[in-house]
Amino acid sequence: MERQLIEAQSSYVDPKITLVGAGPGDPDLISLKGIKALKTADVVIYDALVDEMLLSYAPKQATRVYVGNPSGDESFSQATVNQLMVDYALNFGHVVRLKGGDLFVFGHGYEELEYAASYSIETAVVPGISSAISVPGLQGIPVTHKGDSDSLWILSGTDSRGQLNDELVAAASSRATVVVLLGFAQLPEIVQIYKRLGKGRLPAAIIQNGSMKNEKVAVGLVNTIEEVVEEVGVDHTGPVLLVFGQTVALHGDFYKILNFMEGKTY
Amino acid sequence: MERQLIEAQSSYVDPKITLVGAGPGDPDLISLKGIKALKTADVVIYDALVDEMLLSYAPKQATRVYVGNPSGDESFSQATVNQLMVDYALNFGHVVRLKGGDLFVFGHGYEELEYAASYSIETAVVPGISSAISVPGLQGIPVTHKGDSDSLWILSGTDSRGQLNDELVAAASSRATVVVLLGFAQLPEIVQIYKRLGKGRLPAAIIQNGSMKNEKVAVGLVNTIEEVVEEVGVDHTGPVLLVFGQTVALHGDFYKILNFMEGKTY
Repeated sequence: MERQLIEAQSSYVDPKITLVGAGPGDPDLISLKGIKALKTADVVIYDALVDEMLLSYAPKQATRVYVGNPSGDESFSQATVNQLMVDYALNFGHVVRLKGGDLFVFGHGYEELEYAASYSIETAVVPGISSAISVPGLQGIPVTHKGDSDSLWILSGTDSRGQLNDELVAAASSRATVVVLLGFAQLPEIVQIYKRLGKGRLPAAIIQNGSMKNEKVAVGLVNTIEEVVEEVGVDHTGPVLLVFGQTVALHGDFYKILNFMEGKTY
Repeated sequence: MERQLIEAQSSYVDPKITLVGAGPGDPDLISLKGIKALKTADVVIYDALVDEMLLSYAPKQATRVYVGNPSGDESFSQATVNQLMVDYALNFGHVVRLKGGDLFVFGHGYEELEYAASYSIETAVVPGISSAISVPGLQGIPVTHKGDSDSLWILSGTDSRGQLNDELVAAASSRATVVVLLGFAQLPEIVQIYKRLGKGRLPAAIIQNGSMKNEKVAVGLVNTIEEVVEEVGVDHTGPVLLVFGQTVALHGDFYKILNFMEGKTY
């Protein structure tokens, strides 16, 4: 987009950017405030993780811009998304940046706010339901539970340099329920961390496409979880979340699967 | 409520209990799914932390039952809430149990589901927006941010026996952003933990009534935060959340307050 165009038009619009967290996947898990923001959107810039049904809340004439998953391969980079967001706001007015998840847990929400602020564009924030808490909860796995877990540690599988997050060792050593986002590729390494700590019999769950129709869940022990993942057919398509902790044993299928697996090989 | 009454009437109703997380306080932060559940409620059982405006989504003839804050002093115990929930479901049909927060982070959500299950009552879960993530986010404090924090540890101030949660020491030693719920009374002890670890200059924020009109926020360093809390007038009325971590420095007022406090005494 040409700078000149932006300069020429920017005096006619009132630029504003509203970051909206769409939640874990189920389109009905967006907040009322998020829907209200969409209803006043001139432009909606949305992610791969957002259900397109949500776009129907925006006015018919609003521009819809798909930016894929900025952390994915075949999509726009975060820098491009930032620039698009600002260009559209300066040209068209109210941009709703609709993002899967909650905005601030590995959501790059602050980066987008900061970029908008560097252009002195007004911003607003409408938080979303975090998959880290809601996806286990919807599966009957409470992230905290009296007697089983008094805390929750949420981590990404890799650090900002793309290497295995070295905080995972401290997390695995703690008594916290550990939820790992963006870490399915690191599952074998994380399993090794727990095994080295003597926690092979800690309950674990891997949940793919949580809250959505194509949800898959693998429940087991650290020792068996990779095998269960294979049996259930959990794969890399869509978001995958890992849960380690005693509260996983509260999942309705836990003991059934445990007995089956232990009868088999363990 | 008499057992006999329940027996007599239970054949006429289809008992169901839906747990709905109302979010951090702003009534527009409830999910669309939560509103849909309320619209089909025969009974709404709600907490002290829930905005009463949300009750207007329930049908006029629905029974509204206030149970205060089960963890508070002058309210119904968790056991009483559980029993009320079940009694109303057996007598009247669809009970929406509307709770402040997200349901599963110190929300006793699983305890309520378990109790309902012990009566073979059908249950459903509609997660809410967690204050632990959204309240800092709305204040311009992202709980994770590239380069500053790759993880988030959420803890309660006390353990299930009501004593200082001893995981706070491990949390304070970690690189995670630490969010403490239900821990304002423990602030002096938590500050001491950080000071003993040589982290007196770590940024910290205390947020009261997050996302609500009467919100108050104190931002500073571990060394100064108790003084800022006093100046701002943060107190025990309503929910208070503590945040410790480098991302607190991203709050818009952080450096202004820091300079003021350092000019003064530090």
